[in-house]
Amino acid sequence: MAEQSNNPMNEPRYCGIPTFMRTPLATDLNDLDIALVGVPYDGAVEARSGARQGPRQIRDMSSMMRMIHHVTRINPYELCRIADVGDVRFKQIFDVEASLADITGFYENLHRCGIVPLSAGGDHSITLPIMRAIAKDRPVGLVHIDAHTDCCDEEMNSKYSHGTPFRRAIEEGLLDPKRTIQIGIRGAANSDECWEFGSKHGIRIVYIEEFNQLGVEKVIAEARRVVGDEPTYVSLILTALTRLCPGHRDS
Amino acid sequence: MAEQSNNPMNEPRYCGIPTFMRTPLATDLNDLDIALVGVPYDGAVEARSGARQGPRQIRDMSSMMRMIHHVTRINPYELCRIADVGDVRFKQIFDVEASLADITGFYENLHRCGIVPLSAGGDHSITLPIMRAIAKDRPVGLVHIDAHTDCCDEEMNSKYSHGTPFRRAIEEGLLDPKRTIQIGIRGAANSDECWEFGSKHGIRIVYIEEFNQLGVEKVIAEARRVVGDEPTYVSLILTALTRLCPGHRDS
Amino acid sequence: MAEQSNNPMNEPRYCGIPTFMRTPLATDLNDLDIALVGVPYDGAVEARSGARQGPRQIRDMSSMMRMIHHVTRINPYELCRIADVGDVRFKQIFDVEASLADITGFYENLHRCGIVPLSAGGDHSITLPIMRAIAKDRPVGLVHIDAHTDCCDEEMNSKYSHGTPFRRAIEEGLLDPKRTIQIGIRGAANSDECWEFGSKHGIRIVYIEEFNQLGVEKVIAEARRVVGDEPTYVSLILTALTRLCPGHRDS
Amino acid sequence: MAEQSNNPMNEPRYCGIPTFMRTPLATDLNDLDIALVGVPYDGAVEARSGARQGPRQIRDMSSMMRMIHHVTRINPYELCRIADVGDVRFKQIFDVEASLADITGFYENLHRCGIVPLSAGGDHSITLPIMRAIAKDRPVGLVHIDAHTDCCDEEMNSKYSHGTPFRRAIEEGLLDPKRTIQIGIRGAANSDECWEFGSKHGIRIVYIEEFNQLGVEKVIAEARRVVGDEPTYVSLILTALTRLCPGHRDS
Amino acid sequence: MAEQSNNPMNEPRYCGIPTFMRTPLATDLNDLDIALVGVPYDGAVEARSGARQGPRQIRDMSSMMRMIHHVTRINPYELCRIADVGDVRFKQIFDVEASLADITGFYENLHRCGIVPLSAGGDHSITLPIMRAIAKDRPVGLVHIDAHTDCCDEEMNSKYSHGTPFRRAIEEGLLDPKRTIQIGIRGAANSDECWEFGSKHGIRIVYIEEFNQLGVEKVIAEARRVVGDEPTYVSLILTALTRLCPGHRDS
Amino acid sequence: MAEQSNNPMNEPRYCGIPTFMRTPLATDLNDLDIALVGVPYDGAVEARSGARQGPRQIRDMSSMMRMIHHVTRINPYELCRIADVGDVRFKQIFDVEASLADITGFYENLHRCGIVPLSAGGDHSITLPIMRAIAKDRPVGLVHIDAHTDCCDEEMNSKYSHGTPFRRAIEEGLLDPKRTIQIGIRGAANSDECWEFGSKHGIRIVYIEEFNQLGVEKVIAEARRVVGDEPTYVSLILTALTRLCPGHRDS
Repeated sequence: MAEQSNNPMNEPRYCGIPTFMRTPLATDLNDLDIALVGVPYDGAVEARSGARQGPRQIRDMSSMMRMIHHVTRINPYELCRIADVGDVRFKQIFDVEASLADITGFYENLHRCGIVPLSAGGDHSITLPIMRAIAKDRPVGLVHIDAHTDCCDEEMNSKYSHGTPFRRAIEEGLLDPKRTIQIGIRGAANSDECWEFGSKHGIRIVYIEEFNQLGVEKVIAEARRVVGDEPTYVSLILTALTRLCPGHRDS
Repeated sequence: MAEQSNNPMNEPRYCGIPTFMRTPLATDLNDLDIALVGVPYDGAVEARSGARQGPRQIRDMSSMMRMIHHVTRINPYELCRIADVGDVRFKQIFDVEASLADITGFYENLHRCGIVPLSAGGDHSITLPIMRAIAKDRPVGLVHIDAHTDCCDEEMNSKYSHGTPFRRAIEEGLLDPKRTIQIGIRGAANSDECWEFGSKHGIRIVYIEEFNQLGVEKVIAEARRVVGDEPTYVSLILTALTRLCPGHRDS
Repeated sequence: MAEQSNNPMNEPRYCGIPTFMRTPLATDLNDLDIALVGVPYDGAVEARSGARQGPRQIRDMSSMMRMIHHVTRINPYELCRIADVGDVRFKQIFDVEASLADITGFYENLHRCGIVPLSAGGDHSITLPIMRAIAKDRPVGLVHIDAHTDCCDEEMNSKYSHGTPFRRAIEEGLLDPKRTIQIGIRGAANSDECWEFGSKHGIRIVYIEEFNQLGVEKVIAEARRVVGDEPTYVSLILTALTRLCPGHRDS
Repeated sequence: MAEQSNNPMNEPRYCGIPTFMRTPLATDLNDLDIALVGVPYDGAVEARSGARQGPRQIRDMSSMMRMIHHVTRINPYELCRIADVGDVRFKQIFDVEASLADITGFYENLHRCGIVPLSAGGDHSITLPIMRAIAKDRPVGLVHIDAHTDCCDEEMNSKYSHGTPFRRAIEEGLLDPKRTIQIGIRGAANSDECWEFGSKHGIRIVYIEEFNQLGVEKVIAEARRVVGDEPTYVSLILTALTRLCPGHRDS
Repeated sequence: MAEQSNNPMNEPRYCGIPTFMRTPLATDLNDLDIALVGVPYDGAVEARSGARQGPRQIRDMSSMMRMIHHVTRINPYELCRIADVGDVRFKQIFDVEASLADITGFYENLHRCGIVPLSAGGDHSITLPIMRAIAKDRPVGLVHIDAHTDCCDEEMNSKYSHGTPFRRAIEEGLLDPKRTIQIGIRGAANSDECWEFGSKHGIRIVYIEEFNQLGVEKVIAEARRVVGDEPTYVSLILTALTRLCPGHRDS
Repeated sequence: MAEQSNNPMNEPRYCGIPTFMRTPLATDLNDLDIALVGVPYDGAVEARSGARQGPRQIRDMSSMMRMIHHVTRINPYELCRIADVGDVRFKQIFDVEASLADITGFYENLHRCGIVPLSAGGDHSITLPIMRAIAKDRPVGLVHIDAHTDCCDEEMNSKYSHGTPFRRAIEEGLLDPKRTIQIGIRGAANSDECWEFGSKHGIRIVYIEEFNQLGVEKVIAEARRVVGDEPTYVSLILTALTRLCPGHRDS
């Protein structure tokens, strides 16, 4: 069976059922600290679809992961009880609001068990229903690394899309704009509402020009200052991260 | 300007704005016999998305088209008034039924002008709203070349998807099952309803095994027999066609 | 959890941990009829490597599978108890004979439980160690669909490679050449030993020219005649199968 | 029709006939400030061909464009009358000098109407015939972002190729070397004439080493100093730009 | 050194400098029966360029070749003295007629030595200059496997292109139309001259429909009948061949 | 013949048999200063195979090379006698230690002739047998540009793999750790032995964080300081180099 090995991290990286970062596949939610979750949903994305394939492909690629990073020298696989809990399941994938509700339901279950989720999407519309599950007690802070603010009011005449999650979350009291920082913002938009909304509500936007001036370390310090010590959501677009720190990618 | 050439078919095939089969881009619907239409919609597809990019890519590839086929030796570009009328436009791409209504509206306009449409999708859910526009007077016949019958009742708990259009069309009286032939049907399904529905309603199904026995010419004759002389819709999946007649593809 | 669904075959096909053909991931070997096994090994292949990635990619692609085929109308998911038992694990992937021994060990365990394996490789060298596990009681017959006979004596001065498994299996008494049929054989070789070995030992070789003359149905009948009713191993190269029956691939 | 929308920039970006940056397709040259032009020509390139496909693919990709940049906050679509005027048409694509003449003819027409062209090639040989059309009254300045100076005397024994346009333009009095700056120059050559020509004629070359020392902002200031306020041509290789400013690409 | 091996055909197929079909790289033209020649020229092709990369890529791929075919059981590597003589070299790649002359010069040299050439292009325009070298004594016959007849009079207003070589060869007395057979002809054209020219001059055209009716063996017999025993040129497009005989490709 | 040209560097870059950097293909080892060697071996790599194809593909790509770099303005093709000596040949590619011995044998031959080798792999396991040939007289220094230190003790229970060469070389007295610098080290590992081994033996490790602080020039100075004037081996992973200096790649 696949479970026989002493430490699957020492197996060849192309072997075995691919789970996120080679963590065990959870069979229940007891005794878990961190749950890795796939959210294979791209029904609210405008330009290019395909992120529904994301969780599977990220699982496959994440087998390249190893246990100890050269800077921290700690082993998170030993520090926490961490597992892959599979994908959110959808009852009606062609209905956006029903799908967002399925996501919220899945995360409420995790939240109830006191588990911290780490999610792989999917388009950015999935962030709102996750926040509905985990931030209903009190708003969270946010570190958001992306080209766009995703704070539009509507996209394609829809309130729920990959371009609107953080605006909805602020409107619904799930996200505290004063504890929100958006990093690496750049690129064009069809109106300036996506940037103005943040300015008006006190979001700290680090545009790419400022990012280049400050450098990575000062931006990290600024992010820590903005979010403080309260619960904070981190949301990042992998390609955005790679562009900001091109030298750091492992081979 | 792009319109200056005497005959754009004689231009290098990588030049100019790509329209379907290098036809002129229509500026109005007067004096047209055939309209080439793009339907960039894949919001009701389950497995792999991306067909929303189809019309653009088909336009680009279709520049390889030339005017006269070696068997017929006729030139359809001279026989008919034919043009690319652009893409159906969508007001709410994240809402399936609203999108299907947008498709119906676009084709009603063409149908009112007496124009025969030739469509490039998009996923197969687009066939139902097209039939709603052009078959509301009387049901049409159908020649359908595909692996699947697309006659399921529901898919992912939805009545409107890429697997259900012909069942809906028969239920709505838009499609005459007695004048319907489905060619090359093969592959697995999760229930046998997709094949049983056709048997029960008198659809002529040519499974791949019968197709291989009969050969292309006898299947064409059978298709003519089934649909007769009344108005008939032809629907095909390009890759399905290529698999049935592998030798015929041009380089 | 991933296990909650009533029938995962009805889930969207990009969802969930990819197992072979969407079967359950086995946690033990009790009560299983058929075991789907991955053998991610390509250490004995000469020309192009990469088949070590095969099991994972086949798992991912095999989510396109559905339950009932249009010809048989039976549902193997209900007929048998079938599961994905994961991948063979290797202790020393850089040592060919040690790796073959790991494969044999894994299959002996399955064989002991009376389970029929269905394997996804990996290069063709993996067939010998599988036969060592399941044919040690009595030789098996073989239906082999491929371009090459894989009956060489040595390849790159090695006895164990992707070009030699059936010769070794006959020498070791694991495979009965009189009950062996090789279908679709074609292509060049550096000596004629690969074809002569079969002629000498009574293997029935259906070269591609004879295959084209007989047609699929007569070749199937001939295969049944050759192997008879005794235990028989089936080995096929997926691309070889696709080339022999180009029209049958589903979309 | 494709023209019905109020603002096509608000349509889904995969919809509609692809024009450069989603500008309208011009039907005449009246009342235009800026013309976007495709020059699908790669008949004078040595190493790798294919840039003839460039205008079409750039049109397709440029649908990702939106109206307002986060730094300037201006909307060029409202500031200017801008349109896609289609591609230069060629009478004899296999004859380099005839093709260059076709390019000059197309741009003379634009220049006569007082329109500023923005061109997508095509190999770099197209710059010379464009300058012949728009710089015959007085030489222009140049900001050139590239790895190579494209100031060779001959390439493959030809005076007109993708490696020679700026030398020819200076010889023909179309380009003022004193008002020319070449940015990011790097990589090997078969002789040093490509760099020596510039030194001798007073071209300001910013090699990649100096670029890295100065940084983007000082290089922009230096470019402004060199070209001054007189008419200036800007020529850049997209991949060269991306390499100099890797963090700025939008997703 | 690369030359030390007893028989390079027994080396791993990814090893060594890639020559055509792993033949030795010729250092002179003495004692050669067959010369394998690369003609990296695509300067007379209209639609898609890139065939200039053909000889290198064919060399690389052709390492998959082995010595003995299962039908003939002969070893051409022993029957003939065969070598890779490198590529035709071009003095002015941007000038079509000069390039064709370079090709003729290269082949005249081979012809003078009594060597039979086997060529890898390049676009189909290269056939005319090869015939000019090897058929100037007397016209040759032709077996041509392709979708198009390549018998146009002009393409893009040019007499010499990938669509015109056989018409020019007949006009120049290099090719005997009565001993010419074109196999698998199909697909559209902008005028019927490409087919009419052949009919008028007595070329035997086997359209794809007739090919499918006759089958491979009868078409081969017909080709033998048409060309007879006199010197005959064979010209084929690899993808055309693959489409006519899809099952025969080796893996 | 391929050898006729005066200077093949002036040929179109897609022409001719691909040798490393367009150097002549050596026929013997006399009068050579530098030998370019292919080592098509990836039998000791764990994650992703395919580097066996490396030498061929690098040869093909390296035709983009030209003679003079813009900084040094020297022409190494004139300074040294340099040639492509082909690939190491392997007698038993499925046996790691036999293959490493074949590599050592090839390089001993070069070393005996006083030739400096420049090698293209292949996985990193090839470095150890090269050092066994050229460093047996006295240990060498090392400049190593990579993400990983490749100083593990075992990988997949094997002493000889792509992750262990430098540890073995130090143990065998071939490499002087005090004259070793590893640049750009980053990424995770399953234990910290890969970094600790270096600390313990006095290897100078420049982690990516220090690299970014120091900048390219100071790192080069530090490398010179560490290795001094004695014989030094340089080993780099091409993608690692590209990530450290993204702006320098030529187009």
